[in-house]
Amino acid sequence: MPSFTVFKGHESGNPVKSTTTKPDDLTEDYVLIRVTASGLCGTDLHFRHANIVLGHEGVGVVESLGPATRHLKKGDRVGWGYETDSCGHCTECLQGTETFCPERQMYSEKNTDQGSFASHAIWREAFLHKIPDALSDAAAAPLQCGGATVFAALDGVKPTDTVGILGVGGLGHLAIQFAAKMGCRVVVLSSSDRKKDEALRLGAHEFIATKDASKLDISTPLNRLLVTAAVPPSWDILVPILAPRAHIYPITVSPGTFSIPYMTLIQTGVKIIGANVPPRALHRRMLEFAALHGIAPLVEEFPMSEEGILEAMGRLERGEVRYRAVLIPEN
Amino acid sequence: MPSFTVFKGHESGNPVKSTTTKPDDLTEDYVLIRVTASGLCGTDLHFRHANIVLGHEGVGVVESLGPATRHLKKGDRVGWGYETDSCGHCTECLQGTETFCPERQMYSEKNTDQGSFASHAIWREAFLHKIPDALSDAAAAPLQCGGATVFAALDGVKPTDTVGILGVGGLGHLAIQFAAKMGCRVVVLSSSDRKKDEALRLGAHEFIATKDASKLDISTPLNRLLVTAAVPPSWDILVPILAPRAHIYPITVSPGTFSIPYMTLIQTGVKIIGANVPPRALHRRMLEFAALHGIAPLVEEFPMSEEGILEAMGRLERGEVRYRAVLIPEN
Repeated sequence: MPSFTVFKGHESGNPVKSTTTKPDDLTEDYVLIRVTASGLCGTDLHFRHANIVLGHEGVGVVESLGPATRHLKKGDRVGWGYETDSCGHCTECLQGTETFCPERQMYSEKNTDQGSFASHAIWREAFLHKIPDALSDAAAAPLQCGGATVFAALDGVKPTDTVGILGVGGLGHLAIQFAAKMGCRVVVLSSSDRKKDEALRLGAHEFIATKDASKLDISTPLNRLLVTAAVPPSWDILVPILAPRAHIYPITVSPGTFSIPYMTLIQTGVKIIGANVPPRALHRRMLEFAALHGIAPLVEEFPMSEEGILEAMGRLERGEVRYRAVLIPEN
Repeated sequence: MPSFTVFKGHESGNPVKSTTTKPDDLTEDYVLIRVTASGLCGTDLHFRHANIVLGHEGVGVVESLGPATRHLKKGDRVGWGYETDSCGHCTECLQGTETFCPERQMYSEKNTDQGSFASHAIWREAFLHKIPDALSDAAAAPLQCGGATVFAALDGVKPTDTVGILGVGGLGHLAIQFAAKMGCRVVVLSSSDRKKDEALRLGAHEFIATKDASKLDISTPLNRLLVTAAVPPSWDILVPILAPRAHIYPITVSPGTFSIPYMTLIQTGVKIIGANVPPRALHRRMLEFAALHGIAPLVEEFPMSEEGILEAMGRLERGEVRYRAVLIPEN
């Protein structure tokens, strides 16, 4: 009967060490994983005051398997992200869009006794993803949510498209790499020039500082724009640099409202597309693509302890992380 | 040298009879058409005060042809809509999305001496569409803009989709017919029950009165929603009846701003799609589809005279037209 260390949110906002309150037998296709790395996502900051286990960018090693498992074996390296279960028989599940299954289990929604800020975790085999050998544990962790999210927003892009990435952070610095390796012309938009060199190193072809600009100069209009900045941008200056029928993906989890004049919509033919984490098939294509092209997050490592988590959260909150924090268990 | 009757906007708001001020020789692939019917579109109301020839839902008969014409011949029935020219060599033109050509000529943009409120008009052969025999002149006219617009917003729909049509008017009553003949389950949303019987006769499977409703009951969530109402709707009550990844097309030319919370976008995966009139290939597919399936606007005919135009505009402005006004030249 496994019982293991987890780190939970706390009303103080300072995560606390605890143990699973509901250790599970390994029934059905459940798998016990020893965590080897966990990404810290912006979303974790929203839950730091909640009495639930934190973390949903998990990577680890399979320790034992339930009776109905079929594909994994002890010792396999696996990862998991925001979604950890779905019903398997509704239309959304059957057509491979299980992230919209009405019974889906997204992080924080149902089983709140498991997370990736932990020594171990138990999840269904069906929602675990094998990690390609070319990806280290620390590199694979932030791909489980951050990487998957930007990859979903790039799904269907043409290699001949010009892609704008607004914001160079945990999401943006991965989006630049993916888009560049897909063959796209990559234009990065950031408030100041501060991250210009980094963006170009990551694969950007063009960099635009937006702060105080009343008009943006661009070599080629954008066919697609991924908005990864924490603060929603001013659409007035962005619309003129979009190509006709451009796709706009606002992918940061922001409060606030997306607004665009009806006439602009009609005249430009743009599409505004809500995108969340991708379904499993796309998640796995993302991992393979990252492995093939050497795409990896730039990470700062912290020990997975109360102090380590608190320090990482502080740096993330202050926008200091370059570019994704990863927690490494001390065991 | 043709000189012919046209009806222009006037600062008084009452259209006036005039003649072309710039009669053209038939050069290149220009074609002289004798107008036999013209639709009256909501957009015409925006231009009634402008000193330009009105009308962009034209149908007529070819009277003579310029030296570079290749496909049409005298006596052919043709129609034209909002777009009447484009450059022919830019990327948009080459890939068949010429409605986004930077040099495109949309109604009111360049040649304002031609329109469909006229005895004749001269346009390029390349932007004239042959009218299938099964469509009468009066039925074909409103298809040139109204029909084309809703058809564009239905492009790519699956026959197994559930399609919502918000608003039963000039656009909505055509959208219902097209969507129903495409095999879709059609749900009509209208403020009151007043147009329920008509909507069902046109092919709707379900009708929802939205006025004063705080929550809408629907049998099947909408995969696509066409907003054809003049007044933008309240999104708060519409979002809950959308299926995951629903496509929203706000197609009425409205002032105002489309707004949706970022979190709703992310959680529902909806796409908001700006749609204008379709390019020519789609326009022609629309005419063939209408002819095949007996799709036709319900029209009220008015004489094409100062009085007739004024009366039709008055009825349109007051929301009285059932469901599209057509002007018929008196000659």
